[in-house]
Amino acid sequence: MTEPLNVLGIAGSLRRASVNRGLLRAAVAEAPPSVRLSVFDLAPIPLYNGDVEAEGDPPSVAQLKRRILSSDALLLATPEYNRGMTGVMKNALDWASRPPEQALAGKPVAIVGATPGGFGTRASQFQARQILGNPGACVLPKPEVWVSNANDKFDEHGGLTDQATRGSLVDLLLALEAFARRLL
Amino acid sequence: MTEPLNVLGIAGSLRRASVNRGLLRAAVAEAPPSVRLSVFDLAPIPLYNGDVEAEGDPPSVAQLKRRILSSDALLLATPEYNRGMTGVMKNALDWASRPPEQALAGKPVAIVGATPGGFGTRASQFQARQILGNPGACVLPKPEVWVSNANDKFDEHGGLTDQATRGSLVDLLLALEAFARRLL
Amino acid sequence: MTEPLNVLGIAGSLRRASVNRGLLRAAVAEAPPSVRLSVFDLAPIPLYNGDVEAEGDPPSVAQLKRRILSSDALLLATPEYNRGMTGVMKNALDWASRPPEQALAGKPVAIVGATPGGFGTRASQFQARQILGNPGACVLPKPEVWVSNANDKFDEHGGLTDQATRGSLVDLLLALEAFARRLL
Amino acid sequence: MTEPLNVLGIAGSLRRASVNRGLLRAAVAEAPPSVRLSVFDLAPIPLYNGDVEAEGDPPSVAQLKRRILSSDALLLATPEYNRGMTGVMKNALDWASRPPEQALAGKPVAIVGATPGGFGTRASQFQARQILGNPGACVLPKPEVWVSNANDKFDEHGGLTDQATRGSLVDLLLALEAFARRLL
Repeated sequence: MTEPLNVLGIAGSLRRASVNRGLLRAAVAEAPPSVRLSVFDLAPIPLYNGDVEAEGDPPSVAQLKRRILSSDALLLATPEYNRGMTGVMKNALDWASRPPEQALAGKPVAIVGATPGGFGTRASQFQARQILGNPGACVLPKPEVWVSNANDKFDEHGGLTDQATRGSLVDLLLALEAFARRLL
Repeated sequence: MTEPLNVLGIAGSLRRASVNRGLLRAAVAEAPPSVRLSVFDLAPIPLYNGDVEAEGDPPSVAQLKRRILSSDALLLATPEYNRGMTGVMKNALDWASRPPEQALAGKPVAIVGATPGGFGTRASQFQARQILGNPGACVLPKPEVWVSNANDKFDEHGGLTDQATRGSLVDLLLALEAFARRLL
Repeated sequence: MTEPLNVLGIAGSLRRASVNRGLLRAAVAEAPPSVRLSVFDLAPIPLYNGDVEAEGDPPSVAQLKRRILSSDALLLATPEYNRGMTGVMKNALDWASRPPEQALAGKPVAIVGATPGGFGTRASQFQARQILGNPGACVLPKPEVWVSNANDKFDEHGGLTDQATRGSLVDLLLALEAFARRLL
Repeated sequence: MTEPLNVLGIAGSLRRASVNRGLLRAAVAEAPPSVRLSVFDLAPIPLYNGDVEAEGDPPSVAQLKRRILSSDALLLATPEYNRGMTGVMKNALDWASRPPEQALAGKPVAIVGATPGGFGTRASQFQARQILGNPGACVLPKPEVWVSNANDKFDEHGGLTDQATRGSLVDLLLALEAFARRLL
């Protein structure tokens, strides 16, 4: 029997009721048996500073790198702030991309995002794709999950209530699994 | 007599010997009499968290917003990490863009960047231009200052030693001044 | 009395019933007295070929450049194909940007776009902004006009039937006029 | 014995002495035995027009689609005009992406580019990656081939004279082959 694919979920918002954190919780709940999804919380990751890094990664950063390295694939849930990824998400990817570990090299990645607005975090997701090319991650081409009008699809705690979006998360995880198994 | 234009410089790196911080120091030293350039250090700005913001801006964030609001224009020195702005810079712009102050709305902005690599921080600067459109900043179209091969143009402390780059900073400040005076 | 601002409209689609051509027709109809808007049709512009250019611009290209040079500002209506500008629009900007005329240098430009889809041609418009920076055009930062679900807002001939969108075109033209008069 | 991988090369310039066409000729000459590379010339492809398409693809477009469909992978050589792909290249991708064939769906693609300037056609290549996501092409993450200062590396006819660049084309073709064989 094939081992489940270990997928690490990372959300680009620190807000407790974030809909992007909610997307990851829903993905954990909906994950098929062939996928084991766990979530890493970016709250303890400091802003990147090369002087700090030169003295050794802060423990939270070292843990982030270890978790990425030990995962088979990533699922990024990226809000859109100002037509781009959040500083929170970009900062985490900046740390994670660094040598000597280069934790993102060759890693299969799927991207999702939710926004109260009408444009589905597309600008943020397109930016994530561009950024992830540099450390050599392999971003799943399709399907893409762009969740607009999040206030109609999530409750006040960021819980996903929309069945169609739940279904699209399942489809995405299955596609990520197939993609990752071909690439690994 | 016209008052000098107040320009606030912000660098997207926290490293002491950062060449982008060095660009700002050089711009301060080279600023023509008609421009008064001061620098804001992003080190104390925390990662954006909407829950924290809801309880009131941290003092460093409130100060950043005040400094932007009281300036006539901005000069952003943006490194390039992973084909984009640093998380440090994006995070600062995310805070600064927020209501109720919307400190970036209508603000004239010039962008520069330096990198040890060969591609002049262009990807980062193009991304900065896209991001700054959202809060309604007015980005100076030309000239653009892309400093490649920074190790040949800066000393080990991030001090700019290249005269041509110094000249291009002066040209940029004069163009920013003319642009800002027409728009203000 | 101030002369009306001469604005040249260019649409990135060649289809007769294109909603982006329809946006320009609506803008012509709604233009305030202080703005005189005319439209240039890209149909006769050939694909850019440096060998052809070296022997002299084709008449349609020469005419495009003259029309841009004699206008005070541009209004681009850009569809979105494959997350970007159409080849038709990019090709026209490639010709127009060329020396010796550099017809786009310093030109104030506003951008609009309509799509049957849900994402308002934002990716296309962001790309247009990046492209226009190179020839030194001055793109109006705000307002932005992103028309989604065009099939509900245009008739089968591409005629704009949505009053809110008509209003946003008027607002855009007035903002472009103010922007251009400050910059010219 | 494994059949050679059929790769179709497409250059985004129509100029006879184009360095990007030269890149493809060099790639044909250097292709390892396991890769069979042929080139499609975009000269006869007209500008996209949905009204024309509705009456049936022009023969050159039908041929482009057939050639893409019968290839195992694509190699795109993209110049950079105005911080983006050429209109010529985008126009070809616009045609190729269309239903019912959707010739680009799932197609493995590698991207290269050469420029007389200093920035390696990176902006153009990043844009190509974004565009190709829409029709569902699978773009090879690494290696990337960015050729700057082309006038030092090509002769006056666009012939590639630089051995290091030749080597990087071989590496790219081998990586594309491995990528395509895993995905097909």
